[in-house]
Amino acid sequence: MKDLVQSVELGVSQRRGANVTRPKVWLKNELVRVGLAESLCTYVMMAFGLGSVAQVVTGQGAFGQYLSINVGFGLGVAMGVHVGGKVSGAHMNGAVSFTMCVFGRLSWKMLPLYIFAQLLGSFLAAGTIYGIYYEAIHDYCGGNLTVTGARATAGIFATYPAPYLSLMAGFFDQVFGTAMLLLGLMALSDQKNKPAAAGSEPAAVGLLVILIGISLGSNSGYAINPTRDIAPRVFTAIAGWGTDVFRAGNGWWWVPLVATPIGGVLGAGIYKVFVELHHPPLSEQDGGSAEESIPLEKDQNICANVCV
Amino acid sequence: MKDLVQSVELGVSQRRGANVTRPKVWLKNELVRVGLAESLCTYVMMAFGLGSVAQVVTGQGAFGQYLSINVGFGLGVAMGVHVGGKVSGAHMNGAVSFTMCVFGRLSWKMLPLYIFAQLLGSFLAAGTIYGIYYEAIHDYCGGNLTVTGARATAGIFATYPAPYLSLMAGFFDQVFGTAMLLLGLMALSDQKNKPAAAGSEPAAVGLLVILIGISLGSNSGYAINPTRDIAPRVFTAIAGWGTDVFRAGNGWWWVPLVATPIGGVLGAGIYKVFVELHHPPLSEQDGGSAEESIPLEKDQNICANVCV
Amino acid sequence: MKDLVQSVELGVSQRRGANVTRPKVWLKNELVRVGLAESLCTYVMMAFGLGSVAQVVTGQGAFGQYLSINVGFGLGVAMGVHVGGKVSGAHMNGAVSFTMCVFGRLSWKMLPLYIFAQLLGSFLAAGTIYGIYYEAIHDYCGGNLTVTGARATAGIFATYPAPYLSLMAGFFDQVFGTAMLLLGLMALSDQKNKPAAAGSEPAAVGLLVILIGISLGSNSGYAINPTRDIAPRVFTAIAGWGTDVFRAGNGWWWVPLVATPIGGVLGAGIYKVFVELHHPPLSEQDGGSAEESIPLEKDQNICANVCV
Amino acid sequence: MKDLVQSVELGVSQRRGANVTRPKVWLKNELVRVGLAESLCTYVMMAFGLGSVAQVVTGQGAFGQYLSINVGFGLGVAMGVHVGGKVSGAHMNGAVSFTMCVFGRLSWKMLPLYIFAQLLGSFLAAGTIYGIYYEAIHDYCGGNLTVTGARATAGIFATYPAPYLSLMAGFFDQVFGTAMLLLGLMALSDQKNKPAAAGSEPAAVGLLVILIGISLGSNSGYAINPTRDIAPRVFTAIAGWGTDVFRAGNGWWWVPLVATPIGGVLGAGIYKVFVELHHPPLSEQDGGSAEESIPLEKDQNICANVCV
Repeated sequence: MKDLVQSVELGVSQRRGANVTRPKVWLKNELVRVGLAESLCTYVMMAFGLGSVAQVVTGQGAFGQYLSINVGFGLGVAMGVHVGGKVSGAHMNGAVSFTMCVFGRLSWKMLPLYIFAQLLGSFLAAGTIYGIYYEAIHDYCGGNLTVTGARATAGIFATYPAPYLSLMAGFFDQVFGTAMLLLGLMALSDQKNKPAAAGSEPAAVGLLVILIGISLGSNSGYAINPTRDIAPRVFTAIAGWGTDVFRAGNGWWWVPLVATPIGGVLGAGIYKVFVELHHPPLSEQDGGSAEESIPLEKDQNICANVCV
Repeated sequence: MKDLVQSVELGVSQRRGANVTRPKVWLKNELVRVGLAESLCTYVMMAFGLGSVAQVVTGQGAFGQYLSINVGFGLGVAMGVHVGGKVSGAHMNGAVSFTMCVFGRLSWKMLPLYIFAQLLGSFLAAGTIYGIYYEAIHDYCGGNLTVTGARATAGIFATYPAPYLSLMAGFFDQVFGTAMLLLGLMALSDQKNKPAAAGSEPAAVGLLVILIGISLGSNSGYAINPTRDIAPRVFTAIAGWGTDVFRAGNGWWWVPLVATPIGGVLGAGIYKVFVELHHPPLSEQDGGSAEESIPLEKDQNICANVCV
Repeated sequence: MKDLVQSVELGVSQRRGANVTRPKVWLKNELVRVGLAESLCTYVMMAFGLGSVAQVVTGQGAFGQYLSINVGFGLGVAMGVHVGGKVSGAHMNGAVSFTMCVFGRLSWKMLPLYIFAQLLGSFLAAGTIYGIYYEAIHDYCGGNLTVTGARATAGIFATYPAPYLSLMAGFFDQVFGTAMLLLGLMALSDQKNKPAAAGSEPAAVGLLVILIGISLGSNSGYAINPTRDIAPRVFTAIAGWGTDVFRAGNGWWWVPLVATPIGGVLGAGIYKVFVELHHPPLSEQDGGSAEESIPLEKDQNICANVCV
Repeated sequence: MKDLVQSVELGVSQRRGANVTRPKVWLKNELVRVGLAESLCTYVMMAFGLGSVAQVVTGQGAFGQYLSINVGFGLGVAMGVHVGGKVSGAHMNGAVSFTMCVFGRLSWKMLPLYIFAQLLGSFLAAGTIYGIYYEAIHDYCGGNLTVTGARATAGIFATYPAPYLSLMAGFFDQVFGTAMLLLGLMALSDQKNKPAAAGSEPAAVGLLVILIGISLGSNSGYAINPTRDIAPRVFTAIAGWGTDVFRAGNGWWWVPLVATPIGGVLGAGIYKVFVELHHPPLSEQDGGSAEESIPLEKDQNICANVCV
């Protein structure tokens, strides 16, 4: 456990100096601090995002259209970054956390905490939105909670593929969407290129998510996020939609789980290969490789660095 | 009265030094200064917001749809923050002012002034928009001002619940919407986290309101603000819609009044418990608790601090 | 003439030091410099704005709806401010220029130049958009250029009131819309309050115009600008729509000319009375009135100061 | 070849000091560095842009309307600027690169590299979007890939004129649209005027592209970019739409190629003549003409300077 805490300190808290004594009021365990923030920001993002879908579906077009779902998730992500940004980095997305681990910006030991916090936040947001829209949903579907059909409501919570989409095409759809997300996040946080202006990172990340929803959303609902998709799906399975949530779309449920981490690593890698590796070093004297000269970015909060 | 003025000085004017002699041209009474600004910014926000509803309703979709109402209130709030920001903090919302009092960022003695200014601004804005859209409204409804029915127009001014919504569900809807508003405002103004960039606070708050309208608007019209709702409702009762404005929706009128302050305190409290309390102190030597070390933020305009 | 040039120097160029000798390549006459910039920025704003209306009208909804007209004029204003901002202040609006003169921020001697440049830019933009959309307009209306009726196209260029609107109500509609514009501009440029962040002024002004279009647009097309309205109206009278452009709407044409300057002064005055006059002075020792202490803002480019 | 590399160093890398020895990990050839970045940012812009069209067309309005295409290309451009901004300047548009050469901000020797990289990025993006939307497109058109008709899909990839549009009118449409683009870009990057705020250039350029799409899009799909149009057109010719892509619209294909560079030079020239030439010099002592005093902007990355 001590080991893990050190890993947290390495992964999250390097901006602070030595491990000074802290007053009792603060949580001593940085893991809890990071976990609480990551849970809350994921909850905020998901509540706004799922709420926008619920409003569009149950309102039958009178209270927003597809564009408002794009904006709901996009601005929801932006607000989530404001909520968790400097504490956990506000990944809110298991594929982002995984990609950060692959590229050494997050300790692998932290990954389970991030995933757990993201699952928890998503699950609770799904429950909250079901509660808030309970009467609207039941009024809309006549009390018949279904995954498919004219009055299907499971799509409020988890993603389902379009009728024409094969599993393989959907798999590539999710790989590509997540790749574009991570490619964009890498560019937005690359201080040697043209990053998001200081302070505007939440809005920039939000616009990126809106953009993906506008251009890569219609095939399968742009999950581009494993934890965003599976936790609400499990919630619906429990809450009354039943096991159809796993059977629908030829068993679509596993695709967002498997495809998105692959896409994330692919997109971030493409940015590195095409742009980041070729940046001239700040100081050209040392002659070390770029990889060696900034291996861990020790002097920054590297979580916040990534996604914010 | 002297006591109250001191309270204002404590609550609003701490950024200035001692209570130096002021020229006659300025109002000597800071209460009036704050009250005028809070009234005007509330008026601006409400005129733009109610105007956008009037345009959508009377235009029958030709001059905007639900999204433009979201944008009208959101950008209206942003413009209101520009108008009142540095003077009164531009709360424009009784639930915000109440929550600020609960958490010690506004003197309780100031609360009645804020509430009065907000009611006044909202009432005058409702009257103005009724005047500006008088012919449009009467052309639309054939001169028959009703609260319910196909050509109802009371919804231009105050919020009414969807037909399917029970009072209890609506109560939770308003608690939750206001909680998300205050949670977001706390994050946007938390200088130890990832706050809105300096100067972009008006836009950030406006986007938050758009987001709530897009995701939590269809159940009951997202009042999330007691003073925004009751003053135009009273105006419509007087102006010709009659007492139906209080009877409609099973007597809906009191819900935005009671639920929103509860939601505000809940949302701000959640942010504090999950994130703010765990921030490391800027200086770790003093060993005081976070609560003790920044109890009143004496060196800042704490009103502006909150909502902007 | 020398007098007038001095007036320009006083009004526009105070940020530069003495009247040093200038190389031949620059225009020696600041009037021309300011006039060219004001013409070009007005042209840009109007070309984008009128283009967005032409696209919506001739596209019959397939290429945008009312919201895209709001965005077209709003972002068009923003782009105009980028084009003329530091040179002429990018008023692009005779009511703005007039109001600036009334409040001492622009020399009255400059007003004819601004008006002329705005009329010229608007007229040329109307001609350009008619040329660019010539085939689209004639395809849409079957070659029959009309001011009223199902296939009317005069509304692409100038504003016309809704059928239900009386002249008096339309007059107040334009007074109010322009008042909200100037009230907002005063707030956005008030450095002692919460102004638009440095560099974000073009976007902030653009959002204000979008907001007015979304909330105060349906009665009479939100001209809120005399020069924006009359120059394209004259163009249409010449280009084939005939004198109906002056007869339509019970002779609506003069309303935007007369109501908007009144509204501008009213709105700016309200902001001054409710907020600006009560700002504490930066230095409280001098004891002078606020009016006396910053009468002319001599050390700034006061044109740019106002609208940007 | 050495000559060309020097040209690159002159054109792109002047912000760095002498040509110091670089470690092996970086590409030694700046041409490759610039070419990779320009290809990737063009790819990103085009994938988002074409994706948004594919979503609207195949979704038949359920997943976005014309406005979302405007936003898709606009934010796609913004994201492209983030991806390539500091390396290649992120022109992503042959008309922009050509105009920069004409006005001495890019070496003519660099032009072929930029054009090639833009063609490559556009072609690959077209292929990717066809792959991602393969099943959606074939489901929509029943497997019948056509350029015209009710279920035409070629318009997802390249632009085609409206039925009413003559070639000559279309030519002027593209000249004008591209002129407005370059006029806007010149203003946004003019540090002596009111440029985009530092760091907000990607968003400002994106909003400019949205604005052009909203106001000048319906005649012929606002290519305003030769490389954006021809590469996907060639792709569709190969991928199954056949030579109709060159025959449609009376042989429209050459118009975006020829008209856009003319428009670009025209628009940038107009900005120079109306505004830039008349800026007072920073130091007025030297007495040199503006043209002479800042001929090459040697101390800046002039590519990034232009478009970002």
